[in-house]
Amino acid sequence: LNTNVHLSLPAVCIVWQTAMIILFGVFMRYDHESDAHWVEHRKHSNLTDIENDFYFRYPSFQDVHVMIFVGFGFLMTFLKRYSFGGVGFNFLIAAFGLQWALLMQGWFHWLDADGKIRIGIENLINADFCVAGCLIAYGALLGKVSPVQLMVLTLFGITLFAVEEFIIISVIHARDAGGSMVIHTFGGYYGLSVSWMLYRPNLHQSSRLQGSVYHSDVFAMIGTLFLWMFWPSFNSAICDHGDGQHRAAINTYLCLASTVLTTVAISSLFQKHGKLDMVHIQNSTLAGGVAAGTAAEFMLMPYGCLIVGFCCGIISTLGYIFLTPFMEKHLKIQDTCGIHNLHAMPGVVGGIVGAITAASASIEVYGHEGLVNTFDFMDKFKDMVPTTQGGHQAAGLCVALCFGIGGGIIVGAILRLPIWGDPADDNCFDDETYWEVPEEEESIPTILQYNNHVQNKDM
Amino acid sequence: LNTNVHLSLPAVCIVWQTAMIILFGVFMRYDHESDAHWVEHRKHSNLTDIENDFYFRYPSFQDVHVMIFVGFGFLMTFLKRYSFGGVGFNFLIAAFGLQWALLMQGWFHWLDADGKIRIGIENLINADFCVAGCLIAYGALLGKVSPVQLMVLTLFGITLFAVEEFIIISVIHARDAGGSMVIHTFGGYYGLSVSWMLYRPNLHQSSRLQGSVYHSDVFAMIGTLFLWMFWPSFNSAICDHGDGQHRAAINTYLCLASTVLTTVAISSLFQKHGKLDMVHIQNSTLAGGVAAGTAAEFMLMPYGCLIVGFCCGIISTLGYIFLTPFMEKHLKIQDTCGIHNLHAMPGVVGGIVGAITAASASIEVYGHEGLVNTFDFMDKFKDMVPTTQGGHQAAGLCVALCFGIGGGIIVGAILRLPIWGDPADDNCFDDETYWEVPEEEESIPTILQYNNHVQNKDM
Amino acid sequence: LNTNVHLSLPAVCIVWQTAMIILFGVFMRYDHESDAHWVEHRKHSNLTDIENDFYFRYPSFQDVHVMIFVGFGFLMTFLKRYSFGGVGFNFLIAAFGLQWALLMQGWFHWLDADGKIRIGIENLINADFCVAGCLIAYGALLGKVSPVQLMVLTLFGITLFAVEEFIIISVIHARDAGGSMVIHTFGGYYGLSVSWMLYRPNLHQSSRLQGSVYHSDVFAMIGTLFLWMFWPSFNSAICDHGDGQHRAAINTYLCLASTVLTTVAISSLFQKHGKLDMVHIQNSTLAGGVAAGTAAEFMLMPYGCLIVGFCCGIISTLGYIFLTPFMEKHLKIQDTCGIHNLHAMPGVVGGIVGAITAASASIEVYGHEGLVNTFDFMDKFKDMVPTTQGGHQAAGLCVALCFGIGGGIIVGAILRLPIWGDPADDNCFDDETYWEVPEEEESIPTILQYNNHVQNKDM
Repeated sequence: LNTNVHLSLPAVCIVWQTAMIILFGVFMRYDHESDAHWVEHRKHSNLTDIENDFYFRYPSFQDVHVMIFVGFGFLMTFLKRYSFGGVGFNFLIAAFGLQWALLMQGWFHWLDADGKIRIGIENLINADFCVAGCLIAYGALLGKVSPVQLMVLTLFGITLFAVEEFIIISVIHARDAGGSMVIHTFGGYYGLSVSWMLYRPNLHQSSRLQGSVYHSDVFAMIGTLFLWMFWPSFNSAICDHGDGQHRAAINTYLCLASTVLTTVAISSLFQKHGKLDMVHIQNSTLAGGVAAGTAAEFMLMPYGCLIVGFCCGIISTLGYIFLTPFMEKHLKIQDTCGIHNLHAMPGVVGGIVGAITAASASIEVYGHEGLVNTFDFMDKFKDMVPTTQGGHQAAGLCVALCFGIGGGIIVGAILRLPIWGDPADDNCFDDETYWEVPEEEESIPTILQYNNHVQNKDM
Repeated sequence: LNTNVHLSLPAVCIVWQTAMIILFGVFMRYDHESDAHWVEHRKHSNLTDIENDFYFRYPSFQDVHVMIFVGFGFLMTFLKRYSFGGVGFNFLIAAFGLQWALLMQGWFHWLDADGKIRIGIENLINADFCVAGCLIAYGALLGKVSPVQLMVLTLFGITLFAVEEFIIISVIHARDAGGSMVIHTFGGYYGLSVSWMLYRPNLHQSSRLQGSVYHSDVFAMIGTLFLWMFWPSFNSAICDHGDGQHRAAINTYLCLASTVLTTVAISSLFQKHGKLDMVHIQNSTLAGGVAAGTAAEFMLMPYGCLIVGFCCGIISTLGYIFLTPFMEKHLKIQDTCGIHNLHAMPGVVGGIVGAITAASASIEVYGHEGLVNTFDFMDKFKDMVPTTQGGHQAAGLCVALCFGIGGGIIVGAILRLPIWGDPADDNCFDDETYWEVPEEEESIPTILQYNNHVQNKDM
Repeated sequence: LNTNVHLSLPAVCIVWQTAMIILFGVFMRYDHESDAHWVEHRKHSNLTDIENDFYFRYPSFQDVHVMIFVGFGFLMTFLKRYSFGGVGFNFLIAAFGLQWALLMQGWFHWLDADGKIRIGIENLINADFCVAGCLIAYGALLGKVSPVQLMVLTLFGITLFAVEEFIIISVIHARDAGGSMVIHTFGGYYGLSVSWMLYRPNLHQSSRLQGSVYHSDVFAMIGTLFLWMFWPSFNSAICDHGDGQHRAAINTYLCLASTVLTTVAISSLFQKHGKLDMVHIQNSTLAGGVAAGTAAEFMLMPYGCLIVGFCCGIISTLGYIFLTPFMEKHLKIQDTCGIHNLHAMPGVVGGIVGAITAASASIEVYGHEGLVNTFDFMDKFKDMVPTTQGGHQAAGLCVALCFGIGGGIIVGAILRLPIWGDPADDNCFDDETYWEVPEEEESIPTILQYNNHVQNKDM
């Protein structure tokens, strides 16, 4: 295999970025709140500056931004010799993906009468969300694909995401504030299907590089913790102003706290001598945030959050212990980061929790206005009731699954073409393939000194 | 000693988490601002969405959250072979502690007429604060206790904290926005007392692991910097809306800036050749934030902040140089992270500064309304004057000291029971005891290459 | 050379910090919004608490704070044996610099009729900005100067900055929200000129330490990503409330996204086998944020941002490949971090973009009020038109260049005095000079084990 991306990578980057410039020139404009006309709009609508949407959402946006670049990026530095690729390619595809996401989501959701997309802070958050779906998929493929393949994966992934999201949110009218279905279920099964299409029977040839070293595990904890801490912002970022954002943050916070304890419990229970496994601590502790996504804005109740987190910590950790080896051996799905346990399964759980919570919503718990507000029972959906909403939620979950699996198989077929410069089986998980890696001369003086020391003793 | 926590750790995690679910089910509800009824409440009270407390406090909450998990967690990664335990157990006990804190603080401060606790964003911040007290205590014990002991330490620590806080804040009516007394003095002496009870005369047997390596010191700087940068948020997070939060942030920012310079000065002055010691830079630079806690909201004045920071940098660094070795040798207190210098002493300084600043408050400086507002001279305390407030502040400091030392001795006695799976003296500071640690095969190829190179030369 | 800073460093720290306390005591007070009188002021001005400037700017302030301490600090940890110096000295000079900046900027911009400086959150942001200029300069000198020299560099740098800023912003009335000119152009050329004055012909003697190792490159990515993610906050932090902050954040976000793709393209194109170079990914990806600074608040339009980012990624990466070696060889400018490519050149680009965008502003695009608001065509500048504003922007750029180069030469001359304890040529880039560095005993057991293993085999 030829891993030389000398021409293909620069070409893809330059061509696609140029296309973005042209499309942005044709379609992209500022919205009411970010345009210089805001001063007039503000006076006209009798608003104050602080009621600009920027102040409702910018802190959450920045937290989400950290999750995308530092959270996902550092979570993928755990391999001993693929840290550059983990954090670096994550950076590349996220920076590309968010531009394409602004366009795709804009065409579906934000197109004005004059054919222009008007963007504000909410679009930036949505673009970051959209990118998250592709970064999840990257987790399954980490170390086994070329940057060019990742760019292609992202181009198609964002496209599929935008269509799927439009169907689930706008057509089916499912609610999915934190994207359990739209982001995690889709992204997880998309990545797993691609990985299945790209199955490498001889991957064991690079097994020497498939583990972590001490410091790479600590680096990965940076990713884990920033994801864990900022997940309340992720799930609340695009919720309704006021109680919606407030409640989503509380729900997610509680859900995640509970997950940590059951993850530790299961990890310790199934290892020799009760020792904890860093893989579980790095990943399964986050499953509660995934599962809290759909129902984040609902009246899930504090104890309900703890229960969801409790179950997800168990499911996810057991997934790492039993399911990942099983899937690799029997289903030919190689899942480097275990996204099935961190995103796909908890995403499905989140979708189901959302459907149940929606179906059991009542005017006693929400109040009449609260119910209308939380579920958006307005305009052409003004006659909907919670039970039908629950059905629509379940339908949304099915759409996410179909798009993930179907899209992954198609894109996987494209990525099997022998033109993308992917690494040979014995070059996987190795930064040497696509990066200039510094030589480790550092340790030699110490060794020299030591050897001399030993030799002197011997003499 | 048997360090096997194979059954005890999972059992404790599952049982306690289950207890949390039940207690949350019975007691925990959303408050006015996070409940779906907010829409109605908002209209009724003639508020706008942006006046939901969420928007006043959420950015500060997230900063505090980062301090708890990344700040404390990474500060404790400095040991060469205990980084997993530092950041991992910090994660575990914080995630458990915040749930228990929500309940304990709820019962004391937020109980409604119907026997329910109503939570919102402020409760989340308070829970994180409460957890901080226990993480400080962990700093003294780092590397010498089992995760089960830490869970017990946290259960009792949170309980003691909530009682102590209730007495200091509600009964005595001391002000303590950033918790110099409530969090740092209490947490510091709690940890030191426990450490005294768990004194290990033969700890030198693991002295080979008691230092840092180059990269672990850099990891610890991540913790230091996130604590340092976000301390203004910590001290301002639960202050009064408006000038209270604003002033607390400025005061803390200035205090911390000043501390850095005196820390560097003393570190350089007392080392051979004026070289700086990473331990001081990692820890003593933070002492100013601790000491600014109580008086953060007061009119400490910018120069006053610089003076407090100036003194704390000196005291804390001298503590590391002289006091920590003395305490280990003569008082049988082994303080792994030097929390006496970072939290306990600066906490006491902060309490004293708070008492003096309160006692000298005047209507000229605060304005009448400002004075009432800042010190909460309302309801049954509406006749208080600054000088009495100063006395109450001093009384609060004594309570914090008593709870810290007394509670620590009692809990320490419990933790001496030989049932907790704590490590033997020669297994301390070693992640191998409780974690699956990856083998360091990585460096062998380099060495092999090098040895061949040398041998070839020799021939 | 004597690198002993045993007395000079403590002396400088203590004396300067004492001076700060005195000057703060004489000059520094709280402003309307952070003073306890706010309660009265608020009622009088008919404001609500949420309209305190704190809530408009505090989240951005914290992001900027992270950029200064973690962003710049960790970006400079990339050297294999100068990580302590990179992050540690950055910490020291930033903590000193911000105090001096509060005073200098206060005297020029915030002096009240009674001779007092009134500070609030905006001053803290400005102080952090001012410090950024000096940290940029440190990037050129990394590893080659003593901490005492850095303190001197910062003292003069802040002073020059405040004067330069006053001339550009207040006298010339140029707009520079994100400081392309005021911060980056000035800071970049200031550092390069100092480096030119401190040219070391025999620096190759420490060439063994001038590279990175695997993990130090990952540490540096922490700095890169926090700078990259929070740059929208940097450029929007002191913009106008409402649309100004909103638009600046969007513009910067887009600009940075575009830069990543062209950086990757050029890096891959010019390396053997298309491999990516970490130096480019760590640095050039940020050039778009620098260049978006001046025009951040303007109606640059989304596609305009992408174009600016596109160009900057190319220019900056080519700078690393061709210009930095050329400057070192032929111009005697040794630029450790390549600040010419990351700050100086993109800063000039940003200044030019700002001038063009301002000159072409129109009432059609901005609206009448928007134009007045964005460009501050008020008071004595109320008759200005966009085209003249463009000229003023260009004049501002020239001032920044002159102050940077001129100031750097003068300060460089001062720093050449043989009294500052700077390292010898073969001690450069070595933390041993100014830090207690832990011994790397860790790896010896592994080696021992391995050697025994080999020897046993040999027998």
